[in-house]
Amino acid sequence: MAEHPYVPQSLHLPGYVPMQLSVIEILSGYGLSSLGVVLLVWFVSGQFRHLRGVERTLMCWWAFTGLTHIILEGYFVFTPDFYKRKPPNYLDDVWKEYCKGDSRYAARDSTIVMVEGITAVLEGPASLLVVYAIATRRAYNYPLQLAVCLGQLYGCMVYYGTPLLDGIEYTTAGSFYFWFYYIFMNCIWVVIPSLIALRSWTEIVRQFEHKKGKKQ
Amino acid sequence: MAEHPYVPQSLHLPGYVPMQLSVIEILSGYGLSSLGVVLLVWFVSGQFRHLRGVERTLMCWWAFTGLTHIILEGYFVFTPDFYKRKPPNYLDDVWKEYCKGDSRYAARDSTIVMVEGITAVLEGPASLLVVYAIATRRAYNYPLQLAVCLGQLYGCMVYYGTPLLDGIEYTTAGSFYFWFYYIFMNCIWVVIPSLIALRSWTEIVRQFEHKKGKKQ
Repeated sequence: MAEHPYVPQSLHLPGYVPMQLSVIEILSGYGLSSLGVVLLVWFVSGQFRHLRGVERTLMCWWAFTGLTHIILEGYFVFTPDFYKRKPPNYLDDVWKEYCKGDSRYAARDSTIVMVEGITAVLEGPASLLVVYAIATRRAYNYPLQLAVCLGQLYGCMVYYGTPLLDGIEYTTAGSFYFWFYYIFMNCIWVVIPSLIALRSWTEIVRQFEHKKGKKQ
Repeated sequence: MAEHPYVPQSLHLPGYVPMQLSVIEILSGYGLSSLGVVLLVWFVSGQFRHLRGVERTLMCWWAFTGLTHIILEGYFVFTPDFYKRKPPNYLDDVWKEYCKGDSRYAARDSTIVMVEGITAVLEGPASLLVVYAIATRRAYNYPLQLAVCLGQLYGCMVYYGTPLLDGIEYTTAGSFYFWFYYIFMNCIWVVIPSLIALRSWTEIVRQFEHKKGKKQ
């Protein structure tokens, strides 16, 4: 009998420590702290009169995604033993819960660690830099947004693609974990970066088109 | 005794067909056809008087990298049985030779297939589009160059990073294959995309800076 609730059951996780928190506590912890970040950025950015609504909305997203990359995903990258830490902290339990949707995180799959490493170390700080760049309307804010979005999309392609190639089914405990954790939670980072990449691309192209008549 | 020349020797490749071409034939085939592409693009682009030297040089690179992605890497992605095809064609033998530097290609490692798939299917055609975009000075040529370069760099990070995490030594037959195939050949796609990404980034930022005084 396996000592953990993940699929495949053959996955060897010696010293696995069961979760201390309930699913409700884990999800509401992430949800409420994210909501707090969004509200804080929304109200603070409201003090800057030159910022439009769309800029403030983008700042909220970039603060949320940046902190998720750095804190949540960064913790996973630099804590290989999260599943056996005693006593487990909140982030240990978050990842133990998420592993029900994708056990590659507990198995320390090198592709997952690599993609999460790039996300946490490069894209996380870059996302927070976008918040600053939008607030101060730096000239580099559009190419930076495009760059980070493309990185997020590349990561999602590898994340979703490799299990399809391996033909492995990572879902456990019914379809809830598959649809909610694996598909829905990650699809947020497909849909929103796609929209922002498109917006940034369009704005960059528009700048070049404006200049075209004058220079060439 | 293993039926193939790769490391690890435990790699199971039933029906492996030994290479028909020599290393010299393989390398000179790729080298000469690449040289042909570069010379062709250089001379054809020379007919367009408005193109500067740097633009023509970039067009040569993008044609070379685009065709490498589509033909060479595309062949690998869509030919899982390249190592046992009878009689082997030139591309089969190219990949059998390259596997001496990185046997993950023969093992059909899902991360390699995914990264190569993105490279061949998305970045390959996008690279050829860059050739056209530079020649006709389309407004999207800089963000497109930035996007493809960042994709190439992300791919290289995953390509070089995952073996480091797995702690596996893929090199065989001495250090030649490691340094020439694995390090040198791939580092071309680290160095040149880095330079082009930096150039595209700088040019995009410059466009926004020019407009800043007028609009805000």
